[in-house]
Amino acid sequence: MSYPSKCTFCEQSQLLSLNSLLCNKCHQPLDLFDFNPISKRSTISLGEGNTPIIHLKRLGDHLGLSNLFGKLEFMNPTGSFKDRGSALLVTMLKKANIDKVAEDSSGNAGASIAAYCAKAGIQATIFAPASAPRTKLEQIAFYGALIRMVDGTREQVTQTCKQFCEETNTIYASHNLNPFFIEGTRSFGYEVTSQMITPPDHILFPVGNGSLLIGAWKEYSSNNANIPAGTMPRLHCIQSQSCMPIVIAHNSESWMSSDQKPITVAGGIAVENPPRLQQVLQALEESKGRAVAVKENDIIRWHKYLSLEEGMFVEPTSAAPLAGLERLLQEGEILPKDRILIPLTGFGFKDRIPIK
Amino acid sequence: MSYPSKCTFCEQSQLLSLNSLLCNKCHQPLDLFDFNPISKRSTISLGEGNTPIIHLKRLGDHLGLSNLFGKLEFMNPTGSFKDRGSALLVTMLKKANIDKVAEDSSGNAGASIAAYCAKAGIQATIFAPASAPRTKLEQIAFYGALIRMVDGTREQVTQTCKQFCEETNTIYASHNLNPFFIEGTRSFGYEVTSQMITPPDHILFPVGNGSLLIGAWKEYSSNNANIPAGTMPRLHCIQSQSCMPIVIAHNSESWMSSDQKPITVAGGIAVENPPRLQQVLQALEESKGRAVAVKENDIIRWHKYLSLEEGMFVEPTSAAPLAGLERLLQEGEILPKDRILIPLTGFGFKDRIPIK
Repeated sequence: MSYPSKCTFCEQSQLLSLNSLLCNKCHQPLDLFDFNPISKRSTISLGEGNTPIIHLKRLGDHLGLSNLFGKLEFMNPTGSFKDRGSALLVTMLKKANIDKVAEDSSGNAGASIAAYCAKAGIQATIFAPASAPRTKLEQIAFYGALIRMVDGTREQVTQTCKQFCEETNTIYASHNLNPFFIEGTRSFGYEVTSQMITPPDHILFPVGNGSLLIGAWKEYSSNNANIPAGTMPRLHCIQSQSCMPIVIAHNSESWMSSDQKPITVAGGIAVENPPRLQQVLQALEESKGRAVAVKENDIIRWHKYLSLEEGMFVEPTSAAPLAGLERLLQEGEILPKDRILIPLTGFGFKDRIPIK
Repeated sequence: MSYPSKCTFCEQSQLLSLNSLLCNKCHQPLDLFDFNPISKRSTISLGEGNTPIIHLKRLGDHLGLSNLFGKLEFMNPTGSFKDRGSALLVTMLKKANIDKVAEDSSGNAGASIAAYCAKAGIQATIFAPASAPRTKLEQIAFYGALIRMVDGTREQVTQTCKQFCEETNTIYASHNLNPFFIEGTRSFGYEVTSQMITPPDHILFPVGNGSLLIGAWKEYSSNNANIPAGTMPRLHCIQSQSCMPIVIAHNSESWMSSDQKPITVAGGIAVENPPRLQQVLQALEESKGRAVAVKENDIIRWHKYLSLEEGMFVEPTSAAPLAGLERLLQEGEILPKDRILIPLTGFGFKDRIPIK
């Protein structure tokens, strides 16, 4: 199977196949042409999506906001938003009669791909950094996927996985590179438009690879009848100061891997070299979004507030946007009258800060 | 505040108040008169309910069933179906201006009550057996609830909690006794009717206290326009052979606490003395349901199948109905052509069997 696609960087057209996920000219990830995932129901489904949006009243009161909302993406079948992407990706793999795949992940995407592969009867091998949270690794194993632990950086995990795929003739089911994963996350934007009669002015995303932000942007940019013209919210990218390649790139600086401090509470967004960097920057530019890096202590503080005041048990990564929101309010980029939406991306069971 | 109610055993009418949850004649739990929870939206909500129903095709194939469905109750905001009950119970507590409550739970109900109390700004104290899974206790603590560990049986935990409530003038927010919790679980039955055009012939519940089974039965028995006459499915009660008081009572035997083997993988349904036993028996009788006790090894086997073949990561308790289904098929009580629904009640993160 092959699909019309174009490069996310040089925009050259080419055919995407499961064995060739990068532009043959500049080696950047590809993007599908004219694909409408909303009209295509995933046949390999675990009941993903249609997550509720609730009013975060008490946190809003703290910030002087009367319209702060959370979309509870952790209420997906494997406990993270990744299920939106996995459903479509694994559906396409199954249609192509694939029986074994490999993928690299720091945890949530691996668990998600493993679950959908279990449903589809596809054998999955997940490459993960040795530092990945034990709970996420246990979850991956539960779905029957094989786990290969890799000592080293996140980048080295990716390289090891790619090498395995080449040597064993295994399909590389990369949630970062395969554009069907991105197309799957578009349902997030579609649902926001259906669920909120008055659309949000801002959506703040915790960004590692940026697949949810890119998916929302793609949906808002599409000709989908569900999205009225001119209603694209500003899409903001929030990262930890411990790993902020997109923030640096957005401010026209260059990123060096060695800048990354490996210790962050927001493990879900600790991605040194996001392969879809260019696409995230484009989404920020077109939606007039900001890229903001926040302090570890602020993530920890908002993570506590979320559970203690809103009853939301999420992984620390999901709290980063609230720290970003606080800063954008201080800078006057977001106003108290604005309507704000934050995806709460991962369940609290998956990755935790010990209670002091 | 007080509400018209009647005893679930002797049917005597009396007023329910937050301080008097039992019949003043026979000390059995009370049930509300003419209360329609479906028309009353909980104001203290974390986005509970509206869980998806999916086709468990591969497990159905194993059993020779073409219509086996799961309702993914673990996709609730605290990871279990208990959130349906807690939303309504805590909404009523908030309306009554209560600022502190206590509750006893082996884990899931405690986490759920703790989360909704966090949202409502109510201080919760949760009494739990020392043997409760650590993950569930950590979750309870995360929501800011105080935890009191009690060495002893589940029954002793309840007694300690009741004594604390009397001595400290704290409202006893019991998910077993307060009938608003039960009324909240009725939404399960309401949703099944909305989601399944052809209703299921059988629903198999893992039963400890039986609140979900009772809630479904109450909804199906109500005058709610959503439920066509004569469409009540047979509601079956599945317990572990290690703790089977309802199965014993249903077969007209008497139960002795000492019969309970304390070690079961299905900790969520290890309730020796279910306070609403009479109501569960009534629901079984009226819906023509069976009560079946299943082997520990069969629970473990189906728990594995759920994750490996359907991508469902649930706690072991949630697998008990599949073991019960297997038996009811063998006995000819359930036929291959029947439509079967199973609630998958709790997320797999909460309580686990180690992988061998």
